Parts: sequence; C-alpha cells; structure tokens
Amino acid sequence: MRQQKTLGCSCPLGKAMSALGSKWKPIIVLVINNRKLRFGEIAARIAVISRKVLTDQLREMETDHLLTRQEFKETPPRVEYCLTEKGLALLPILDLLEKWESEYDMKTENALT
Amino acid sequence: MRQQKTLGCSCPLGKAMSALGSKWKPIIVLVINNRKLRFGEIAARIAVISRKVLTDQLREMETDHLLTRQEFKETPPRVEYCLTEKGLALLPILDLLEKWESEYDMKTENALT
Repeated sequence: MRQQKTLGCSCPLGKAMSALGSKWKPIIVLVINNRKLRFGEIAARIAVISRKVLTDQLREMETDHLLTRQEFKETPPRVEYCLTEKGLALLPILDLLEKWESEYDMKTENALT
Repeated sequence: MRQQKTLGCSCPLGKAMSALGSKWKPIIVLVINNRKLRFGEIAARIAVISRKVLTDQLREMETDHLLTRQEFKETPPRVEYCLTEKGLALLPILDLLEKWESEYDMKTENALT
C-alpha cells in the first residue's frame, strides 16, 4: 500500500497561513519592518484599510506573537507597535513572496500583449 | 516632508496574498508539488477539506495560473492537476514559511513550559 501523507489545519503551513490570515497582515509586517510605529503612522502607509480593520488585525497579530504593542502613559497617550523576533523573521520570506508575484505578474502581462 | 510609501491591495504582496487566499491554497500547492494528481488523490492527502471547498480552490488556482487542469476523454473520465511554472516557483517559499512556523511554534511552546 502506498504511504500517504495527509495534511490538515494543524500542519505548520496551515498554522502559518492562519497566523498570516488576510492579505493585510503580511502588508502590516512589511510596513512596520524594523521600526517602531504608531497606529496613525501605520494607517497612513497602508491605503484603503479602515481603522476598524487595522485595529482588529493588530490585536490578532499581538496574540499571534508577530508584534508587540507598547503603551506610554503620556498626554495625549502614545502607543507604538514593533515586530517581535518572529515577525522580523518573516521579512525575508515576504520579500521572496513579493518578488515571486512581481515576476509572474509581469510574465502574465507579457503573455497577454 | 517625509516621504511615505503607501501600500494597498494592488501592491505585489497584496496580490500574492490574494492569490494564495485561504490557508488551503498553499497546502494544495505543497501536496501537488511536482506531480500530476487526480482530484481524489489531492482530497485523500488533505484532511478535513470538503470536496466542495477543494473544487472551488482548484478552480480559483487555475484562474490565477497556479495550476493547470488536464481532462482526458476516457471512460471513466480522468482529470489531472499539476502546478504551472508559477506554482512550482512557490514551493521553496512555502518551505521557508513552514520552517518559520515550526521554529517559532516550538519556541513559544518552550517559553510556556
């Protein structure tokens, strides 16, 4: 009998895709990069994302240990987000994913013209 | 004035994540790999995915040029799926993503014990 490897939600790739979730999370990782950014600064760098969606995504990413949220007791209050070691380790992979899309997007466009 | 790079749905990473969509598509890419597989063979290798969801995912992946669907006029009819050049180019990136998840999953577990 041929051995079959079955994959499901709990395999590492399934987990990784669950953590990355929507298309927004990888974009947020790329935007924050190795900086400390405030909510408004992240929002300003990502077009067409609502404040509500961005808030939810940041909260989920904090739970998934992709970023940390630091609150400063100042007036007005200041909140900064930065990537964790896990989040930072994602950067070179997202870079490859971006290059992959750009390369094959161009090839498809060339094939259509 | 500081130059701000704004990112949105149409940036390469946004497009890549749209093409990869749910967590299922990367898993399907990994399962097909460099083989030609029938629908039933793909279904058997992925736990907890319904035939309806698998059918939809395969159709969308064909539209996004990640795989090709070849139909053989036989009795009973035979349909085989294989990755395109674009789909194959995703394999090493998904491999890195899998390793990333495994590594940090283990670190989180160790930190909790």
